Amino acid sequence: MKIGFLGLGSMGQAIAANLLKSGHEVRVWNRSPEAARNLVELGANAAATAAQAFDVDVVFTMLADDKALRAVLLDSGLLAGLKGPLIHVNLATIAVDFAEELAALHKAQGIDYIAAPVMGRPNVAAAGQLNILAAGPADAIDRVQPLLDLIGSKTWRLGEEASSANAMKLATNFLLVSAVQAMSEAAVLVTRHGLQSADLINLVSTTIFPGPVYQGYGTLIGERRYEPAAFKAALGLKDVELIRAAAGQVSVQMPTADLIRANLLDAIAHGQGDMDLAVLAEVEERRAPAADTTR
Amino acid sequence: MKIGFLGLGSMGQAIAANLLKSGHEVRVWNRSPEAARNLVELGANAAATAAQAFDVDVVFTMLADDKALRAVLLDSGLLAGLKGPLIHVNLATIAVDFAEELAALHKAQGIDYIAAPVMGRPNVAAAGQLNILAAGPADAIDRVQPLLDLIGSKTWRLGEEASSANAMKLATNFLLVSAVQAMSEAAVLVTRHGLQSADLINLVSTTIFPGPVYQGYGTLIGERRYEPAAFKAALGLKDVELIRAAAGQVSVQMPTADLIRANLLDAIAHGQGDMDLAVLAEVEERRAPAADTTR
Amino acid sequence: MKIGFLGLGSMGQAIAANLLKSGHEVRVWNRSPEAARNLVELGANAAATAAQAFDVDVVFTMLADDKALRAVLLDSGLLAGLKGPLIHVNLATIAVDFAEELAALHKAQGIDYIAAPVMGRPNVAAAGQLNILAAGPADAIDRVQPLLDLIGSKTWRLGEEASSANAMKLATNFLLVSAVQAMSEAAVLVTRHGLQSADLINLVSTTIFPGPVYQGYGTLIGERRYEPAAFKAALGLKDVELIRAAAGQVSVQMPTADLIRANLLDAIAHGQGDMDLAVLAEVEERRAPAADTTR
Amino acid sequence: MKIGFLGLGSMGQAIAANLLKSGHEVRVWNRSPEAARNLVELGANAAATAAQAFDVDVVFTMLADDKALRAVLLDSGLLAGLKGPLIHVNLATIAVDFAEELAALHKAQGIDYIAAPVMGRPNVAAAGQLNILAAGPADAIDRVQPLLDLIGSKTWRLGEEASSANAMKLATNFLLVSAVQAMSEAAVLVTRHGLQSADLINLVSTTIFPGPVYQGYGTLIGERRYEPAAFKAALGLKDVELIRAAAGQVSVQMPTADLIRANLLDAIAHGQGDMDLAVLAEVEERRAPAADTTR
Repeated sequence: MKIGFLGLGSMGQAIAANLLKSGHEVRVWNRSPEAARNLVELGANAAATAAQAFDVDVVFTMLADDKALRAVLLDSGLLAGLKGPLIHVNLATIAVDFAEELAALHKAQGIDYIAAPVMGRPNVAAAGQLNILAAGPADAIDRVQPLLDLIGSKTWRLGEEASSANAMKLATNFLLVSAVQAMSEAAVLVTRHGLQSADLINLVSTTIFPGPVYQGYGTLIGERRYEPAAFKAALGLKDVELIRAAAGQVSVQMPTADLIRANLLDAIAHGQGDMDLAVLAEVEERRAPAADTTR
Repeated sequence: MKIGFLGLGSMGQAIAANLLKSGHEVRVWNRSPEAARNLVELGANAAATAAQAFDVDVVFTMLADDKALRAVLLDSGLLAGLKGPLIHVNLATIAVDFAEELAALHKAQGIDYIAAPVMGRPNVAAAGQLNILAAGPADAIDRVQPLLDLIGSKTWRLGEEASSANAMKLATNFLLVSAVQAMSEAAVLVTRHGLQSADLINLVSTTIFPGPVYQGYGTLIGERRYEPAAFKAALGLKDVELIRAAAGQVSVQMPTADLIRANLLDAIAHGQGDMDLAVLAEVEERRAPAADTTR
Repeated sequence: MKIGFLGLGSMGQAIAANLLKSGHEVRVWNRSPEAARNLVELGANAAATAAQAFDVDVVFTMLADDKALRAVLLDSGLLAGLKGPLIHVNLATIAVDFAEELAALHKAQGIDYIAAPVMGRPNVAAAGQLNILAAGPADAIDRVQPLLDLIGSKTWRLGEEASSANAMKLATNFLLVSAVQAMSEAAVLVTRHGLQSADLINLVSTTIFPGPVYQGYGTLIGERRYEPAAFKAALGLKDVELIRAAAGQVSVQMPTADLIRANLLDAIAHGQGDMDLAVLAEVEERRAPAADTTR
Repeated sequence: MKIGFLGLGSMGQAIAANLLKSGHEVRVWNRSPEAARNLVELGANAAATAAQAFDVDVVFTMLADDKALRAVLLDSGLLAGLKGPLIHVNLATIAVDFAEELAALHKAQGIDYIAAPVMGRPNVAAAGQLNILAAGPADAIDRVQPLLDLIGSKTWRLGEEASSANAMKLATNFLLVSAVQAMSEAAVLVTRHGLQSADLINLVSTTIFPGPVYQGYGTLIGERRYEPAAFKAALGLKDVELIRAAAGQVSVQMPTADLIRANLLDAIAHGQGDMDLAVLAEVEERRAPAADTTR
């Protein structure tokens, strides 16, 4: 079996490295080819073109955003010239309607399209412990399951409709940014009442809100430390826009998403787009400066 | 040492029962006296009046709301006629400014006032596993610590300013209702995209959002089961109003609290005030009915 | 006929001066008595106490806020000691539930209570051109109509339920603050796109939005001139709180009121509570600073 | 001078008819050619293709939306094959970034591009009384001014940057939808307090809010009459999305636009997208049903 892998950011590199453990040939490709170097040292082959990386049995993509994927796969004419059998596993978080478009375009070429966005940071990916949300043709998923088992601890099967996996992924991302927004508001509330926000975070993350989100982002908020960013505010905005688009598509309101979007715009307008998502706490800080709070 | 206990709702009864384990005399009082029966069987003395329950060394109160406490303690003239030494431990979640008022009034009578709102449901209280947020005179807290250890697994000390404990408690409640609101929005999003909200809840509560809140309220949302209520929507609104008042007092905005308040009003306007807080999910459901979602 | 008048702020003075034109005796009272001086020169009698000003046939009140009215009329025991026949015309914008309480308390004493909040600034009051929103016993309103005609250009009759007039007044105030908020957002939008907000105001106030609100507040926004304040932001917040309370009382959401409240808190937290309501535009400015707006 | 006109909806037909009064040849084109019939009877020539309608000295376009314009002018290759001198006057309300794109593409072909969105309904257009917001090369606007004077009562010159006119137009549309939203909230408030919303509208539209918006939409709200639609809710949503995009482009938040978007989604989800924008009042009605409003 030949495997292709396109998109070698920090997530992509970690995942591709795990796929090498399958023993199959892995052809890797990235827009900036130097990103392939580490993987080649580990035994991967560097594909000269994206097309070569697609000339395999199973191809994984983890490109930066919808625009990059559209450029590489559609605008280039690459997909239009392909023919199955081929399984394309798209690990990226993309728009729901783009997933629907991709599923249809692949089907027309006789190619199996699997949406398989993942939950987890680069360190989780490196450990092969991602949670994988997979949707698409059942038999195709069955066939790639051994590969998915190399990169994740669990695959959540979400049916035949590829876009379902993307909708589910966006919902989890929404819960994540909502938790950060809630902690941001709560932090200012307790701070203005003379308490330490770090104490609030400690209290809740060891009692009713255990787990990595409240713990991780909460610590950043408690320490007012937003750099270096693990997840940039500007990328958070990109996700929120995807969430809102997915909601608008089915006439669903997401009022909390609206207000988070506004706050992320605020962060960006204040030059904080490259800081961590936790900088949402600074937006709330800015709206209620510590001085002159008496009424 | 004599102990008083006023307010024998489900939380109060569970806590008072644990205080009986101290071996001290416990005088219990409730507006409707029949609530004292169980405790008397366990060895408590029924106080005929609120004043008798205050004629002790340490008195605990867990009254229904600010209004009830004001009626029993202030409007009745009870506090004005008391004199220290006495320690009053108020376990209820009350308004921050009311806590400030109470602290001052107690001090004027030479009485130690400890704000000690608790985190946990009646079953947690019964197990003596509450988290206690305590603020007030340090030596007074030291003296009642053995009693607090009978009712909670941990006491979080939050300084000398009694109201600090209330601000902290309201912040945790805010995080709780925010999580329920976020799950409500996310549930409708995935449902309208053809998924099961229960699957979303299962996914997140076993990965990035472990803990009782996402698990507990999430299950109700996933099953669209809002009765019987463990925590009524109408009481949620009461809490949100306390949160907003505490924020307004220090000119802090809480945009998420605003939208949750609006949604709780919606629930109440639709006759769902006695349902569980998780009914917030129905409010979002109502705004984006399943039929006719095409645009 | 003897007339009483309590509350001699800028509105009260202007209105009382017009009532003097009736030829009747007018007894004026104000907490700070020096405010009565001008009116005494115009022929009014200075009442030594609030009670004297109520010892008349028709008494008008225009006190600063609900708290002032409660202090003068209720907490003092004044109303409890009064007996009809007497007509009390309350010109102030007060809470809907307080109006209901006052109507009941007056009725118990055999006194006619008319809610008659007015629309217009002091210069409009001086010209006797106010719009008066009147509700209460029909025959009582009929009897005072000649007096109302001295102070307003039109009396809008809103039924027998006094609080109706207050609800209507709060609704008009809500429309006013909403228009200011909308202009504030629009002003930042065009400014960041390189236009002058004054040009936007000029465009709309001479076309689709004629009238004093868009013209008046719009000019302040276009010129970014917020002092001296004709209507202070802090008073705007007071009104918005009354609006939200009136809405909450009948389980009505007012999402725009919520966000205006948040922005007014922002203004106050930034030390701008004494500036004109139009300072809402600065709040939006602050959230999207001119520099660094590229994404 | 030869004039082209593309886009013969109700606005386009009314405007083109006025351009015929110039005495110049007017070539009209519409995707569905039957829309040209009336104008041909009035003396226009029917262009067989969009290209023929562009083969003139001045071409006006009033196409349905950005997508239609992109299809006719860009995707077809039409613009790429054109060469100046030619003046293109785009009367439609389009996205700010699309206006920027169009200005650049026209310039590259040596064609003058004038953004000239108009304010006014079809009856205003028929009367030649539109307000025209014009931006683009100054000398080009000077040259078409006699034509603009045939279709509008006033041309507002907004500089050389075409997109400025679109930003200004979107700002006025935002003020319009905001006023409708504010009236919607206020209407429910007074209704639940036992008043008639029509009385509120009558009060404000004859006092502090004269003019067509409060009067026109207010009447619809007061009468709860949403059909036939003069301006459909679904088109209102399209405008709000353009407004939000224009704001997001410069990192400006528009919180009121966010909540109006949510409410328009609500209307659409309830099958009311083809009703008048005033149906926003029904959305608020639905959230606070008349029954069971007691708390």
